[in-house]
Amino acid sequence: MTGLDIHTVAVVGTGVIGRSWIRVFVGAGHPTRVFDPDPDQLAYAMNWLSEDLERDVAGGLLSSDDASKQVALAGSVESLEEAISGVDYVQESGPEKLSIKRAIFSDLDRLAGKDAILASSTSAMDMTEIASGLEGARRCIVAHPTNPPHVVPAVEVLGGKNTDSSIIETTVEFLRSVGQIPVVLNFFIEGFLLNRLQSALVREAFNLVQSGVADVDAVDAVVRDGLGLRWALMGPFGVGNTNADGGVREYFTRFRQDYIELMDDLEGTPPITDEFIERLGQQVDDATRGSSVADINRWRDTMVTEIRRLKERHPEPWKK
Amino acid sequence: MTGLDIHTVAVVGTGVIGRSWIRVFVGAGHPTRVFDPDPDQLAYAMNWLSEDLERDVAGGLLSSDDASKQVALAGSVESLEEAISGVDYVQESGPEKLSIKRAIFSDLDRLAGKDAILASSTSAMDMTEIASGLEGARRCIVAHPTNPPHVVPAVEVLGGKNTDSSIIETTVEFLRSVGQIPVVLNFFIEGFLLNRLQSALVREAFNLVQSGVADVDAVDAVVRDGLGLRWALMGPFGVGNTNADGGVREYFTRFRQDYIELMDDLEGTPPITDEFIERLGQQVDDATRGSSVADINRWRDTMVTEIRRLKERHPEPWKK
Repeated sequence: MTGLDIHTVAVVGTGVIGRSWIRVFVGAGHPTRVFDPDPDQLAYAMNWLSEDLERDVAGGLLSSDDASKQVALAGSVESLEEAISGVDYVQESGPEKLSIKRAIFSDLDRLAGKDAILASSTSAMDMTEIASGLEGARRCIVAHPTNPPHVVPAVEVLGGKNTDSSIIETTVEFLRSVGQIPVVLNFFIEGFLLNRLQSALVREAFNLVQSGVADVDAVDAVVRDGLGLRWALMGPFGVGNTNADGGVREYFTRFRQDYIELMDDLEGTPPITDEFIERLGQQVDDATRGSSVADINRWRDTMVTEIRRLKERHPEPWKK
Repeated sequence: MTGLDIHTVAVVGTGVIGRSWIRVFVGAGHPTRVFDPDPDQLAYAMNWLSEDLERDVAGGLLSSDDASKQVALAGSVESLEEAISGVDYVQESGPEKLSIKRAIFSDLDRLAGKDAILASSTSAMDMTEIASGLEGARRCIVAHPTNPPHVVPAVEVLGGKNTDSSIIETTVEFLRSVGQIPVVLNFFIEGFLLNRLQSALVREAFNLVQSGVADVDAVDAVVRDGLGLRWALMGPFGVGNTNADGGVREYFTRFRQDYIELMDDLEGTPPITDEFIERLGQQVDDATRGSSVADINRWRDTMVTEIRRLKERHPEPWKK
């Protein structure tokens, strides 16, 4: 089976990540069965799906016809068995607790057809441990998305020790076919790439606010109006390559000593107390002047979608 | 004097940063005198200015008429005195060495009119030290841009201990009037905000590549197709606010323990050897398939400009 043979999909677990995966799959035309052990959560997610598609129609991102087709492709079901029997690919987005993941994957492996791929959205766990002892450990894999996956395309893909390399290839092929950008890790590392990089930045952001040198909005501004405008196009190595006329070698050689000094000056993990979180909350409230998270997310989704369209219209020089 | 009273500007030092500042000022209609002690560097920068404006014309970002007007506003001069006598604002972008900065600022303070603001692009030095002992220390200030300033708008603004608060206000007002986004720091900190945040991310990116978990392009992909698409819109706190339906308090409370564990797991500064830099260089070469830095920069500038236009067309919900 190749990634392009995958047709029917199941989404298991419908929190913020799971519900967004539904949009990825139905957006690419796949019949998608949706299940959550909590019927309220499931109903909430199905309702979110319709509403979010309607918002895209209102925003001119999608035709009304396409939205209807996509809604029709998603079907909520009442049992795990009903969700996964006969599907080609399962995307699990349950709670981030090893005992729960192990229980879910045990059920998935027992109930799914033998060729189905079982993927977890886990951002933290090692598939070697989740699938330990399962007969079908070879078809179990991590596909950790960026939130929200139907908008932000990077997905970290890695197998456990027992995952077949063909399963990794098929998963990459399938995810690419539904518009995601899979990034393969060579082995498990705590937090994978994405959350390690994010934690490194967030830790320093915390330390800057705690030091009093700047407030939350100033730290955010340096990212959104500075660093982030480059990082939306190029990662840290790509940026280094463009920060000296002679490219990445010249850049990191010329600034090597400055980087070392600055890196050595960075602080460790600060205390993240309730009081500190409340202080962040108040400063975010001030900066966003009462806008709801739903409205901000809507804006984010529109903007990221538009930036991705810009990238399609203006590909990198080496893609021309 | 307010920031809007500033008319004539001098750019002193014309490397990658200084030459880009010329575009900021002429782009906003300010007569700009340009000086560099190295005549070749100066000629190179003036040539770059014309060519870069022509490229914008070719790319449809600027009319041919506007480009001519902007070129005409920049005049290279042969001495520091000629550059700064009678100007309202000086943007210095010389070498990052304290003894050199002190010598330049001593000259600037001696030669400039008493009301002129003397700003340094330094990314590392404390204006308290640069302007120590100068009669005009009160009008000396740091205005550290993101590279390149005519494209990426965030500028870190901070005074030294002797800088007048009115000079900070005027500088912020002026920089805003020329299209920059000034971010004020409350006091000096090594690397300011921007380079500390960048170093934190780069350090982890180095550690990931050195560990062998992924190559340069995979680490870059997680940023450009993941984290960076959000960071172009919102800094780390803004992103936290949108990653849970209940906002930033819920997000950092729910994931507090995960963040602490991951932050504690981050490594310190790796050895940045010549061999490691060469390895990065080779992987960047592979990823960019022979595209020149100039071509990539051109693409970056177009893309960042387009993203900023998108932001103007779709302002944040609280700006509506």
